[in-house]
Amino acid sequence: MQISARELSQLLNGTVEGNPDVTVNGPSKIEEGTPGTISFLANPKYESYAYQTKASILLVSKTFKPSHPITATLIRVENVYAAVAFLLEKFNQEHQPKKGVATETAIHEDVQLGDNTSVGIYAVIESGVSIGADTIIYPQVYIGKNVKVGKNVILYPGVKIYHGCEIGDNCILHANVIIGSDGFGFLPDSDGKFKKIPQIGNVIVEANVEIGANTVIDRATMGSTVLKAGVKLDNLIQVAHNVEIGENTAIAAQAGIAGSTKIGKNCLIGGQAGFVGHIKVADGSKVQAQSGVAASIKEPGKAVYGSPALPYGDYLKAYAVFKQLPTINRQIRALEREIAQLKAQGFNKNKS
Amino acid sequence: MQISARELSQLLNGTVEGNPDVTVNGPSKIEEGTPGTISFLANPKYESYAYQTKASILLVSKTFKPSHPITATLIRVENVYAAVAFLLEKFNQEHQPKKGVATETAIHEDVQLGDNTSVGIYAVIESGVSIGADTIIYPQVYIGKNVKVGKNVILYPGVKIYHGCEIGDNCILHANVIIGSDGFGFLPDSDGKFKKIPQIGNVIVEANVEIGANTVIDRATMGSTVLKAGVKLDNLIQVAHNVEIGENTAIAAQAGIAGSTKIGKNCLIGGQAGFVGHIKVADGSKVQAQSGVAASIKEPGKAVYGSPALPYGDYLKAYAVFKQLPTINRQIRALEREIAQLKAQGFNKNKS
Amino acid sequence: MQISARELSQLLNGTVEGNPDVTVNGPSKIEEGTPGTISFLANPKYESYAYQTKASILLVSKTFKPSHPITATLIRVENVYAAVAFLLEKFNQEHQPKKGVATETAIHEDVQLGDNTSVGIYAVIESGVSIGADTIIYPQVYIGKNVKVGKNVILYPGVKIYHGCEIGDNCILHANVIIGSDGFGFLPDSDGKFKKIPQIGNVIVEANVEIGANTVIDRATMGSTVLKAGVKLDNLIQVAHNVEIGENTAIAAQAGIAGSTKIGKNCLIGGQAGFVGHIKVADGSKVQAQSGVAASIKEPGKAVYGSPALPYGDYLKAYAVFKQLPTINRQIRALEREIAQLKAQGFNKNKS
Repeated sequence: MQISARELSQLLNGTVEGNPDVTVNGPSKIEEGTPGTISFLANPKYESYAYQTKASILLVSKTFKPSHPITATLIRVENVYAAVAFLLEKFNQEHQPKKGVATETAIHEDVQLGDNTSVGIYAVIESGVSIGADTIIYPQVYIGKNVKVGKNVILYPGVKIYHGCEIGDNCILHANVIIGSDGFGFLPDSDGKFKKIPQIGNVIVEANVEIGANTVIDRATMGSTVLKAGVKLDNLIQVAHNVEIGENTAIAAQAGIAGSTKIGKNCLIGGQAGFVGHIKVADGSKVQAQSGVAASIKEPGKAVYGSPALPYGDYLKAYAVFKQLPTINRQIRALEREIAQLKAQGFNKNKS
Repeated sequence: MQISARELSQLLNGTVEGNPDVTVNGPSKIEEGTPGTISFLANPKYESYAYQTKASILLVSKTFKPSHPITATLIRVENVYAAVAFLLEKFNQEHQPKKGVATETAIHEDVQLGDNTSVGIYAVIESGVSIGADTIIYPQVYIGKNVKVGKNVILYPGVKIYHGCEIGDNCILHANVIIGSDGFGFLPDSDGKFKKIPQIGNVIVEANVEIGANTVIDRATMGSTVLKAGVKLDNLIQVAHNVEIGENTAIAAQAGIAGSTKIGKNCLIGGQAGFVGHIKVADGSKVQAQSGVAASIKEPGKAVYGSPALPYGDYLKAYAVFKQLPTINRQIRALEREIAQLKAQGFNKNKS
Repeated sequence: MQISARELSQLLNGTVEGNPDVTVNGPSKIEEGTPGTISFLANPKYESYAYQTKASILLVSKTFKPSHPITATLIRVENVYAAVAFLLEKFNQEHQPKKGVATETAIHEDVQLGDNTSVGIYAVIESGVSIGADTIIYPQVYIGKNVKVGKNVILYPGVKIYHGCEIGDNCILHANVIIGSDGFGFLPDSDGKFKKIPQIGNVIVEANVEIGANTVIDRATMGSTVLKAGVKLDNLIQVAHNVEIGENTAIAAQAGIAGSTKIGKNCLIGGQAGFVGHIKVADGSKVQAQSGVAASIKEPGKAVYGSPALPYGDYLKAYAVFKQLPTINRQIRALEREIAQLKAQGFNKNKS
């Protein structure tokens, strides 16, 4: 989308200072502004960038008074933040896929599709599925038998949902997310071979959940693996069978949660963190990146760090000493020598 | 599948106590039982849950005598465990995909398909491939040239198998598993650029292996990356080129094994564990989650922990002291002060 | 491909010693040579393997004089390394996919395809895309709106590229790589719910980049996430929004880089390493596997290790002492006892 300063100022109900014919194809951060983009000055502390930015258009407040020359065309608006939000949405819309159901798809005849739902080409929707209104299913998605998908959901290309799982309203599942693969459950026999335990539960993803690319949520052995409303998961995360993640908990990339663990609500989990199975993590817990949570966290709102994880401050204090261990080791050797000397002196004195 | 207590009791050769018309659509754990499910009491230590469970049907032994009222309809059977195993299989079957070869697939004319093999829509099978009998290939799978797939294999949607790889009988590959992508092999030239080393080996997955969703097994540079019979891999695992994993070894999610490392048989590897390249790990090794194995493990049956990994008990003991390091540091400072005092006293005495 | 010793010797301009009719289907390492393969002896230090190898053909120098009998058929060539390079390329070519554009694809009518570009079946290419010459797009790939793909690129099955991203010449993206998924950006509101920040930037992958299977590169919030020319990424790596990775940096599997971090050029990053957001890592840095880089690395060419990461040698030295902590703890207790004794002796002396 190429759009001119003149057109933008009309959309934003603003006024142009400079060349109204200059065009842009997207927004940029003011410190990274490049020709062909529109940048914005909302926070006065970034004002110095206004005089350096290479953005073609700069969105500023009606009241902004530059103290140096600015090369960008200015668009002045009443409320810069509101204008930026409007622009982000506008530039974001242009990639929306084609509306409607593609001609080449494999949608079972008993599938219930909501109004205004789009299904991309080469998507597969098996028997017994229901899809809510306004949902967008990109090409190459697979939806297994008896899955329920809510309203206003986006399933990006390559998403695979196994049979019997449920996806709530307004969820976003990024490319190649896997929902409902078998939990990792085996019984060893007497000669060390494993027998598979059928995994016949499902996954329930409640409303307003976003799941990052290539993340995997395993189905429960029995019952459900549950992501509660508002959970946000980053990319490449592992959620094992029968895990539950509480409302509005956010988890960064590559974290992993072992079977049957219950994470509370409003937790913040860092990247590459790991949780053993069958523990409970209290609401509002903060888990530092790469930590290994090996036991339940019982008190809400606490931060932990380390593998196995300790209270955050305790880990940092211990690690500060860890760094000095070679020095400390030498100090202990020195103490040993000094005590040996003192004892020798004492011995000599006793003898004398 | 909705099934009534009456129908279930007939299938299980049991007797009903309570409403025979109540229906269920799946099993549940007794402590999580919900209306519309069948739960079971096999282990007497869970008996208290029998009086609280909300499951609609409860499967119990013929000899069970409740000590309190139970709201669920009871089905009494001779052997509860056998009945549960029967039920798990029964509820597990209902999601089996449609038999036969879908109309829209891309199967090269020279491909050999075994009897009773199913191929889902939009699957691609290249030239020279052979597929055994009773194998199920879900939609959107890709099988490269000259791949061999055994009998009774399940390839879930989105599995991609590069050319020349082999998958043994009874294997299960979950959604979006990648088999045979190029190993990570490059030669740096004098100005730091990398030249790709062709990766012309393959991957051999022996019989009875299960591989979790989004796991990647790279092809060998030359020769084969090998998963021996009975190996079980969880989700999002990395297996690099020329790795070998021994019989019946189980590896939890997000673990990674660098190039040419040989893991023994009957090992248990925790989640997010890592292995450097070119080492050997003895049979029966146990590697704790998040450990970093940086050297060969020579003695069979040992447990390790930490990064780099130490003998399990040693790591835990060292970590127990690590937690106290700030205190220990203060103790050493105190010792230094005390020795300085003692020396000063000694000096004074010598002077006096 | 089955090829006989006679045919190979003609291709390599060499001479045969032994059975010229023996055939092979690929190369092998001399220490792993199996019947039906061709192995090679280029480095004299591997000569002992020449007398043990089970390879059917052994490629040796014209000047090689065996000191023991060799069972393999020999092919003698002028330059063994050059012959091996020729063979690797030859055996590597056979899996090339069918040339041309498959009949069943979804290529928007305005897409610009370069000369000699191949598009596999069930691939989807949306409006506004341009693809360079000689590029190979395997089946089941998805390319979103307005994506630019360079010349001589390989996109393996299942690759998904979101709208507006750019892939440079000679890049290789392995199966199920995701380019341009939304960055993980949310604003918490007063009651802990998250509001999504639109991610309207893109990803720019420069020339000669290789990306391993199931790796994810998120699009920038605004601006671009950038992989500079010559970057090599292994499998299952996470690259967050607005990250930049410098020229010819190589990153091993399962590493993760948080938002807005800038990695320099010519860095070597170990597997499962993690980087916090908003830091800068100097050119030529070496980050040990599983390390957690929590602060900028300012000096070029340094190695780091640990979580949080320390200078490499410092971590190893501290960890060497860490292992001995239980012993050290006992030593400190012993020192305390000895000092108490000394003080008691001193006290007694003073009293006497």
